[in-house]
Amino acid sequence: MEKTLNEIRKDARSIFYAALKAVDPAQAVKRWLYLEENILKIGRLTFPLSKIRKIYVVGAGKAGAPMANALEEILGDRIEEGLINVKYGHSQKLAKIEINEAGHPLPDKAGRRGAQRIFHLLEKAGENDLVFCLISGGGSALLPLPVKGISLKEKQEVTETLLRCGARIEEINAIRKHLSRIKGGQIARWAYPARLIVLILSDVIGDRLDTIASGPTVPDETTFVDCLKIVNKYGISSSLPVSVINHLGKGAAGEIKETPKRGDPIFVRVHNFIIGSNIMAIKAAQREAERLKYHSLVLSSFLQGESREIARIYAAMAKEIRTSGNPLSSPACIICGGETTVTLRGPGLGGRSQEFVLSAAIEVEGMERVAILAAGTDGTDGPTDAAGALADGETLMRARELGMDALTYLDNNDSYHFFEKLGDLLVTGPTRTNVMDLYLLLVG
Amino acid sequence: MEKTLNEIRKDARSIFYAALKAVDPAQAVKRWLYLEENILKIGRLTFPLSKIRKIYVVGAGKAGAPMANALEEILGDRIEEGLINVKYGHSQKLAKIEINEAGHPLPDKAGRRGAQRIFHLLEKAGENDLVFCLISGGGSALLPLPVKGISLKEKQEVTETLLRCGARIEEINAIRKHLSRIKGGQIARWAYPARLIVLILSDVIGDRLDTIASGPTVPDETTFVDCLKIVNKYGISSSLPVSVINHLGKGAAGEIKETPKRGDPIFVRVHNFIIGSNIMAIKAAQREAERLKYHSLVLSSFLQGESREIARIYAAMAKEIRTSGNPLSSPACIICGGETTVTLRGPGLGGRSQEFVLSAAIEVEGMERVAILAAGTDGTDGPTDAAGALADGETLMRARELGMDALTYLDNNDSYHFFEKLGDLLVTGPTRTNVMDLYLLLVG
Repeated sequence: MEKTLNEIRKDARSIFYAALKAVDPAQAVKRWLYLEENILKIGRLTFPLSKIRKIYVVGAGKAGAPMANALEEILGDRIEEGLINVKYGHSQKLAKIEINEAGHPLPDKAGRRGAQRIFHLLEKAGENDLVFCLISGGGSALLPLPVKGISLKEKQEVTETLLRCGARIEEINAIRKHLSRIKGGQIARWAYPARLIVLILSDVIGDRLDTIASGPTVPDETTFVDCLKIVNKYGISSSLPVSVINHLGKGAAGEIKETPKRGDPIFVRVHNFIIGSNIMAIKAAQREAERLKYHSLVLSSFLQGESREIARIYAAMAKEIRTSGNPLSSPACIICGGETTVTLRGPGLGGRSQEFVLSAAIEVEGMERVAILAAGTDGTDGPTDAAGALADGETLMRARELGMDALTYLDNNDSYHFFEKLGDLLVTGPTRTNVMDLYLLLVG
Repeated sequence: MEKTLNEIRKDARSIFYAALKAVDPAQAVKRWLYLEENILKIGRLTFPLSKIRKIYVVGAGKAGAPMANALEEILGDRIEEGLINVKYGHSQKLAKIEINEAGHPLPDKAGRRGAQRIFHLLEKAGENDLVFCLISGGGSALLPLPVKGISLKEKQEVTETLLRCGARIEEINAIRKHLSRIKGGQIARWAYPARLIVLILSDVIGDRLDTIASGPTVPDETTFVDCLKIVNKYGISSSLPVSVINHLGKGAAGEIKETPKRGDPIFVRVHNFIIGSNIMAIKAAQREAERLKYHSLVLSSFLQGESREIARIYAAMAKEIRTSGNPLSSPACIICGGETTVTLRGPGLGGRSQEFVLSAAIEVEGMERVAILAAGTDGTDGPTDAAGALADGETLMRARELGMDALTYLDNNDSYHFFEKLGDLLVTGPTRTNVMDLYLLLVG
């Protein structure tokens, strides 16, 4: 029996919520980590608790509190002590692990103090100890620990100069890692010889471990020499603080220890686990879509590009599904994840997900039983209190009845007010997770 | 055995050429239409030649000559006479059917004279006659026959005014049809009571019969009253020529005959066949991809949007195929068709297909055994002599070796010179067909 538009809209929401549930930070920790008869199991690893001397917990990221809380629920008093840097407003009182609030996206002194204490905590850990490192979105800004002689402000200046001259994100990260005492694999160095288990909630396209939170627990592929090459490439040596140039120069001359590299024996003691990611959310969405009897297709978790344009391929697929049954016969659900962008043109209010849905709505006007949903898994979308929005083939007609011209709202980047008036905002509240956005197309 | 990058690049070309072959105008006519023991067969229809008195041929469009030539090869002397309007430079000397060159994209007097003669030719056709109408890209501009009292120039002014005020293409077409003696189903009216067989090569997204060449052989869904509403909606009644306003007003008052509508008995005698279209090209591409052992997926033949942005989803899919085997496991071939657009920012030379490929190349830099091909089926792409271009994961590296920065070329809309230097332009020469563009992704 054909699904009605209302059912399809309801299904779109169910699919999104199923995806959210799969990447809930606490649930993710508990799915990956559990105790069985005093044996701690994670992935294929097992650790008899009796052989572990002390358990330390460190980390940084917006989802730090629920992740730490889940860890406490599993390990309770076996945790010796812990400290996690989280964003202001994201803390929670826990029994053993201290949650330290700090600045994000701009690092601040509170973050630095926390990072310093994490550094000392890691130094305490010995061979028979177990260190957990909990990493989630924002982990890089929330773990600022510049090398001696360079201030937070100077490090910030370096980033700004690099952004201005058009350096690529990999280039910026290479330099950041070499100005930090903690990034580019250095948490692994300080935790050694303890065993280090890293639980990661990825908010980065492609889930590259050396990119998430600037890769504090994995080998760094870049060198001081690379950093100097980047400085020369953009001709910015005179724009950077002298302290920074000196540090990079000394490093390139071999006077400062390099970040840990592939093959370094410290990494034998390190186990990185991505416990939540965009593709995991997508796969949960796909399972829910299949449960709801849709044929489903995952296109990509690497989605990037201008929201309003990317949305048009969703409309194009809706039309093709209707016309020829490609790429799927209906009822069909197409799923993408990633993070699109919005080039601001107008004075309106919106976010990349809401703008995506508005642009798609314009293109599917008049189509029957078609719905589009896009939303951020963190529960926010741009500077709004909505996670995203939901539209269908009747959206434009309903908007016109309310006197709204969709194209004008799109031109003004005002998707929030468009969907607010229609009652089609998707509001989840803060989800305490972040694995970027989901983009759904349903054709009944 | 894994395919090498060279094999993958070669496969991409083969797939594109297989698609081209499937929509060759002459081949398409011959595939749909053939004689068997003096019985003319087309689709499920059969016409014993002995019962047909005379056969006339009319039409318009850039592919008119090869379509007419194929028809002559099949029907030879049985054709009484014929006239097709084609674009300057697209004619060919035929035995029975006259090929008349005319202006495109701006209609001119030569087009009008041809349309007038076609009109008289249709009037000659009687009940036992068969009229072929051959329609292809450009058919609308190439068949200009304004109603009495309105000049070509005035009709052109109307279009310009409508474009300026932001009218939608459906609105522009509604008015165009009501200022024409031939569009909006009126060829069907003049051909009646002869039987009318329409062979259509579609260059329009979605292949809507009432859109291709302004739908001269199908019922018109718009009315004179609609036209007046559109004029009022945009407040342009004083900007339009008085003759036009008068004509629309008289029509709305019932003083002028409406365009033929659904249910009009004339359409019982009309048989429309889309003999070539983007989705047919896509399906031929898919068959070739499967023959070359690729898993294949057709996403859409409705592709629209800003080239450089749409290209990013191709890169995103390439990465997902490599990472998780979604939406297909490799070797994978993803196929889209349609017509993207380029917003000009720089002074360079290029076209939408070449810019698509350049943008995708930037995003797949460093990926192994990945190729992207985009090209126009008409053999041209923007104001260039190339149909499109071909790129792969090594394109950026090769460009750098030649001192080219891909982003700069993209910023300058200079994809043609980028691929020219790399030897990666796809040059087919004029193909005499046009079913829009093809966009291919191959992941080996």
